[in-house]
Amino acid sequence: MNYQFAGRMQQLKSSAVRDILKLTQGREIISFAGGLPAEELFPLEAVREAADRVFASGRQSLQYGLTEGFTPLREQLCDRMAAKGMQVHPDQMILTTGSQQAIDLVVKVLTDPGDTVLVETPTYLAALQVFQLYGLQVEAVECDEQGMILEDAERLIRERRPRLIYAVPTFGNPTGRVWSEERRRGMLELCIRYGVPFLEDDPYGDIKFDESAHYPTLFSMQQHSEGGPVIYTGTFSKTVAPALRTGWAIADSRIIRMMAKAKQAADLHSSTLDQQTLDQLLRHFPLDRHIRAIARIYGERMLEMSALIKRQGWKDVRFSEPKGGMFLWLELPEGLDSEALLRCSVGKGIAFVPGASFYASEPKRNTARLNYTHSTGERLAAGIERFAEALAEFTARC
Amino acid sequence: MNYQFAGRMQQLKSSAVRDILKLTQGREIISFAGGLPAEELFPLEAVREAADRVFASGRQSLQYGLTEGFTPLREQLCDRMAAKGMQVHPDQMILTTGSQQAIDLVVKVLTDPGDTVLVETPTYLAALQVFQLYGLQVEAVECDEQGMILEDAERLIRERRPRLIYAVPTFGNPTGRVWSEERRRGMLELCIRYGVPFLEDDPYGDIKFDESAHYPTLFSMQQHSEGGPVIYTGTFSKTVAPALRTGWAIADSRIIRMMAKAKQAADLHSSTLDQQTLDQLLRHFPLDRHIRAIARIYGERMLEMSALIKRQGWKDVRFSEPKGGMFLWLELPEGLDSEALLRCSVGKGIAFVPGASFYASEPKRNTARLNYTHSTGERLAAGIERFAEALAEFTARC
Repeated sequence: MNYQFAGRMQQLKSSAVRDILKLTQGREIISFAGGLPAEELFPLEAVREAADRVFASGRQSLQYGLTEGFTPLREQLCDRMAAKGMQVHPDQMILTTGSQQAIDLVVKVLTDPGDTVLVETPTYLAALQVFQLYGLQVEAVECDEQGMILEDAERLIRERRPRLIYAVPTFGNPTGRVWSEERRRGMLELCIRYGVPFLEDDPYGDIKFDESAHYPTLFSMQQHSEGGPVIYTGTFSKTVAPALRTGWAIADSRIIRMMAKAKQAADLHSSTLDQQTLDQLLRHFPLDRHIRAIARIYGERMLEMSALIKRQGWKDVRFSEPKGGMFLWLELPEGLDSEALLRCSVGKGIAFVPGASFYASEPKRNTARLNYTHSTGERLAAGIERFAEALAEFTARC
Repeated sequence: MNYQFAGRMQQLKSSAVRDILKLTQGREIISFAGGLPAEELFPLEAVREAADRVFASGRQSLQYGLTEGFTPLREQLCDRMAAKGMQVHPDQMILTTGSQQAIDLVVKVLTDPGDTVLVETPTYLAALQVFQLYGLQVEAVECDEQGMILEDAERLIRERRPRLIYAVPTFGNPTGRVWSEERRRGMLELCIRYGVPFLEDDPYGDIKFDESAHYPTLFSMQQHSEGGPVIYTGTFSKTVAPALRTGWAIADSRIIRMMAKAKQAADLHSSTLDQQTLDQLLRHFPLDRHIRAIARIYGERMLEMSALIKRQGWKDVRFSEPKGGMFLWLELPEGLDSEALLRCSVGKGIAFVPGASFYASEPKRNTARLNYTHSTGERLAAGIERFAEALAEFTARC
């Protein structure tokens, strides 16, 4: 029979990363495309021990759990949030299947089809997919290296009355951008003045290369966590391991209660085996030390990639070294379409994500996102060599 | 600030089960309310060994996975589906966070707001919540003990042009009803003739008390699994353990592809630690023997509860013994509102789910769902005693 799919699905663009993974299947490809953390840094033994403790706690550990998530883990996470200046109690927190689900639930409970959401230029592509699926109008706010330009944000707030503003203020994906404290404060004031909720997506905040640097979250800048405009979301995917699919959101307890109602219909709850394992891990494993170690190594890899690129001496290729996170953002020569470059690159055995996918509108096609956390040493060097070959061939052609 | 929630959330009824759990918090309550499997039957040791094998396979086991789910588990599940007469290849299967998420994804990809979905009378309440959240019109098809009455279904199909039909044809929730083979075949023909997709939700099919009984799935009755109207969903929550939150859907590969696109935006993928653990479990643990043992014990518990109720000799209380599944469905005296009875019952230390929650429209308020899998022996007997007290007090009052 003929299947008639929902309107929301027909409009959904397919993910560039996904399409690339298809192109690379079965080939020996070095990939700078995914946002994969380095497997060799996963605390496998600690996770195994934590899981063992969960199993030792008895059969109850395998039963259904609360939609909001395993309470002891929420309690521990509240302490971790407090250490970052975010005072919340467990009723203000929900555990999710990665922070991706937190984005989905926030949009589900706070927006109606046709509403407007404001985003950074460029922004996280899988958030754009969520907005598309919920039928939102996405408006890109002009940005510079300090974050969203407040005047443009205010203009769009007044003109478009958005129901939500979405951003990754610390080590943004794809650019690695860090919002200045002034912009954070200014944005918070705008959100309060105009009554617009702000979704602060923070998967990378812990991955900072300068240990002493402090980037206060917008959530922590609120006077009270109840009644404020900021919904904050974090994840264990980059600091422990992605397979456990555990993220969290904190917000006003009314918002969390709504998210729990939505989540109950969506999947009842996320894996409590994973949540209990993470709860045990936090009790017995020095996670903060581990995070500092990861961040240091990722910082070294970023410098390694940066040095390799600089050594190539490409004409008209610009980038700045990020202060944290997982990505290097390249601006390629004007007029070059990086999606075409990608097809050529895959032929050479190297993949990356073309920048156009990260724009809500008016994509800058001569941009590319390169991940530096998953490749190192010879593989990293070979990847840059292959990228260089593709670029040389391509720029000769255009 | 004032939060303006989405229209879809304002219409969502809160779950009766959830509200009851709140009433019971902190009290010593015997609960026949939840659909909880018996913890003492969870194969804890086998799950632990399976998880150990996953950890022994190395750090790659903690990395991001495919949205469609862990391929080796999908392959094994395809073999299990084939053993039930459902021939599918892994491209026709997606793993989900419990089968609840499969319901959510099917609705997301196949319906638009305002569309009609047909359901049984009564039907699974958390499916009703999904339909509400997606803005669907829910029409209840008349049912008898054989399943949906085909004439009424056809009338509604012609009048309302539904985008989806949803049912639990084997050991329905809440009634325990099993559709006859004739009704299954007739429904399949209707779906093909009118081009309506049919979501066959089968969380309980394995929990059958008569081992030799055979209830063919509607999916297996299709001539081809590609191009047919049936989307089938199953889960490990009742046969292994709920905490691993792993369900699956099988369908035409185009539908699965769409569900994968929707799932990517919803949560990227479900826990691959759980999926890999289940994959190992299936390789080393005699799951089918385990399922037969569970079903036998649940059958005994159902008879135990049934005998206790019969011994009470309640006037005007009717039920039939289900042939499988987890619930006993009571029809209480005419005019009795079981939601009021519940409030009284909770005072006595016993909880159940009032039947009204399971109706899309025109609820029969004198009905109640009792779970028999989670209580046994003295606890079960005490629960029925308390229920009897509440009922006696209540019928005296009304």
